[in-house]
Amino acid sequence: MKPQREVFHLPSYTTTSGRALKDVRVGYETYGTLNAARDNAILICHYFTGNAHAAGRYEDSDPLPGWWDGIIGPGKALDTDRYFVICTDVLCCIRMFDGHAVTTGPSTINPETGKPYGLDFPIPSISDFVHVQKALLDHLGIERLVAVAGPSSGSMQAIQWAVEYPHMVPRVLAGLKAHPYSRCIVECWAAPIQVDAAWKNGAYDPKEQPMTGLIETIRLTFVTAVSHAFVAKAYGDAWADPQRDPLASLDNEYRAHASIGTIASVGAVQCDANHFLYMVRACNAYDVTARIGEAKAKFLFLPAESDILFLPFMSEEAVAQIRAAGGRAELVTLKGSGGHLDGLNVIAQARQPIVDFLNSN
Amino acid sequence: MKPQREVFHLPSYTTTSGRALKDVRVGYETYGTLNAARDNAILICHYFTGNAHAAGRYEDSDPLPGWWDGIIGPGKALDTDRYFVICTDVLCCIRMFDGHAVTTGPSTINPETGKPYGLDFPIPSISDFVHVQKALLDHLGIERLVAVAGPSSGSMQAIQWAVEYPHMVPRVLAGLKAHPYSRCIVECWAAPIQVDAAWKNGAYDPKEQPMTGLIETIRLTFVTAVSHAFVAKAYGDAWADPQRDPLASLDNEYRAHASIGTIASVGAVQCDANHFLYMVRACNAYDVTARIGEAKAKFLFLPAESDILFLPFMSEEAVAQIRAAGGRAELVTLKGSGGHLDGLNVIAQARQPIVDFLNSN
Repeated sequence: MKPQREVFHLPSYTTTSGRALKDVRVGYETYGTLNAARDNAILICHYFTGNAHAAGRYEDSDPLPGWWDGIIGPGKALDTDRYFVICTDVLCCIRMFDGHAVTTGPSTINPETGKPYGLDFPIPSISDFVHVQKALLDHLGIERLVAVAGPSSGSMQAIQWAVEYPHMVPRVLAGLKAHPYSRCIVECWAAPIQVDAAWKNGAYDPKEQPMTGLIETIRLTFVTAVSHAFVAKAYGDAWADPQRDPLASLDNEYRAHASIGTIASVGAVQCDANHFLYMVRACNAYDVTARIGEAKAKFLFLPAESDILFLPFMSEEAVAQIRAAGGRAELVTLKGSGGHLDGLNVIAQARQPIVDFLNSN
Repeated sequence: MKPQREVFHLPSYTTTSGRALKDVRVGYETYGTLNAARDNAILICHYFTGNAHAAGRYEDSDPLPGWWDGIIGPGKALDTDRYFVICTDVLCCIRMFDGHAVTTGPSTINPETGKPYGLDFPIPSISDFVHVQKALLDHLGIERLVAVAGPSSGSMQAIQWAVEYPHMVPRVLAGLKAHPYSRCIVECWAAPIQVDAAWKNGAYDPKEQPMTGLIETIRLTFVTAVSHAFVAKAYGDAWADPQRDPLASLDNEYRAHASIGTIASVGAVQCDANHFLYMVRACNAYDVTARIGEAKAKFLFLPAESDILFLPFMSEEAVAQIRAAGGRAELVTLKGSGGHLDGLNVIAQARQPIVDFLNSN
C-alpha cells in the first residue's frame, strides 16, 4: 500500500496562546478512499517523535513501512478497503527531515523576518495540534469521524479531540494517561539538547543542529521507551567491541548503550532539536481531567503491559475517570515485553478488539 | 552520635587494571568502638553519589544525619554499643566537596605532574574500592568482619568483598543485582556532563566544574532513583510558579522538574563531574556472576518494592543464583512507595531481620 502524501496550507492560524501565525503548513498522508458520504474517515494522531507516515511504503524498496502498518491496510484492523485513514504531521513535528514530513515550528522561516522563528515561535498545545487537524477535516468536508486513534502522545490528541469536538468523535483508541512522573522523565529527555552549546539558546541554524545533545536526548528517549527484557535480550551484558573494555576508557562502551546510540544517531538526522523541546512542552501541558465529561465518545485503551514510561495503571486510572464522569471506556492490555514501543510493535495483537470496537455503537 | 573521621593513606596502590598510583588517600568514618579482639567490625560501603558519612552528625546543628542513620547508632540495628561500624570514601568518590570527604581520583593532583590527573586517572573497578578498604582493615588489624553491608552500589562492593575475601566475610547485607537495563540507564545519566562544553573532554579545572551538565546528570539520577508515587505526592501536576505557564516559555517549569533541579543544584556543588563518569563505569563493570560460588557468606537482600532502577526481581535472581551455587541467601522486601531511595529512607523497617541476621550463623 502506497500512502498519498499532501500538504495542507492554512493562510493563518491563531494558537491557543493567542499568537496569529501566517502560512501554516502541515503534511498529511491518507490510506484508502473517502466515500461519497464522507463518513468513513478515521483520524490517526502520530506519536512524540513520529510523523504522518503511519502505514504503507513510499517505494517498494523502503526497508520499513509506516509505524502502525500492523493495523492500517487492506483487511487489517483499520481496513483501508472500508475506511479512509488520515494522519497529519503535527505542528512542531520533530521528525521533519525524513524527506517527506512537512510541519511549521521553530525551524520554519518566519515570513515576516525571513529567518527561522527559533524560540519566538509559540509553544503549541495538544489543542493546537487538534485544531489544525480539524481545519484539515473541514477542508476535506468531513463532518464526523468513525474514530480517532493514536499511540503515546497521539493518544493525547485523540482524547483531546473527543473533548473538544464531541459530536465528531464517537470512538477513541488511546494508549495512555499523563502522570507527573512520566512528565518529569519527558522533561529530562530534553536536557542534553539544552546543555549542548550548539543549541545556542534555540537560535541555531536548522542546518546546524546541536547534534551531540540531540543524539543523547533521543538515546535517553529510546531507553525509557523500551524495557528491561528488551535490553537484556537484544544486547545483554556485552561490550560494544569485545576488544575494548569499558573499564579501560570512557570511550569504550557497552553494546546496549552503543547500539541504542546508533539508533539515536540515525534518527537524529531526521529530527529538529527545538521541535523536540516544543513537543516536550506540548505533551506535558496536556490535561483533560476537568473536561473529560464533555466527551461523547466511547474509549478503548490499549496499554502495553511492559511499558515503563506510561504504565498500565495510568490507563486504568483513565478508564476509571471516564466511567466516573458517566462515559464508556474499555481496556485491553497488549501482551509483550518490549515496553512503551509495544504500542507500535505489537498493536496488531489487538486486531479483533479494535474491529469489534469500530463496529460497535 | 558524632562520627570519627580519619584519612587513610596508602603510599602506593596498583589498580586491577595495572596502574601504580602514588599517595592514595581515602577518608573514613567510624561509629562505636573496636573491641580488644578486633572482631566486632561491620564494614559499610557507600552508594553511588554518597560518601563515608553513613551515620551521626558532625555538629548538633547539622540538618540531616548520615545516610544510613536509621540503622546505625546506639540501640539501632547495627548497634554501635556492640559493633564497630566503619565506612570509607571510595576511590573517585563523587561527593568529594562536601567539606569532609577525602578521595583520590581524576580531580586529585597527580604528584608526578602537579596537575589534576583528569582522564589519565585509571577507571577503578569495584574490586579496587574493595582492595583499598581491605588495606585499611589490615592497617586497623581487623582480620574478620561481622558483616559487610551497603545500599545500591554499596551492595556491589559488599558482594565483591564476599567473593574476594570469603574468609573475612560471614554475612552480606545487599540491595541489588546489576542488570543490562539498569546499566544502560546509568550510562545515560552521564550524558549531560559529556555534552557540556565546560567538561572539556575531562580536562576542566576541578574548581570550574561543567556545572550545567552536572546538574542535569544529577537531576536525571534523582528522577530514576525515586518513583511515580513520590513525584505524584510531592509535586503533583503543579507549575513551579503558578504565574508562569510551562506552555508559555521553555524557561517556565513544572514544579516536579524544578524542585528536583533544585535538589540537584544543591548536590552538584558537592560533586565532581569526572568522578561521576568514573563511578558510572566502576559500577557498570561490576559482575560477580562467575565467582559467586567462591563466597562463604550468607546473604540478606533488602530490595525496595517500588524501586524502578534496580527492581526487586533482580534481587530475587541474585538469591536464586547464590542458592544455585550452593550458598545461603534470604530476601526481605522493604515496603514503601519511594523508589530506589527507600533503600536509604525506610531501611529501619528491616531492623529485626537485620538484627536476627547479624546474630545468626
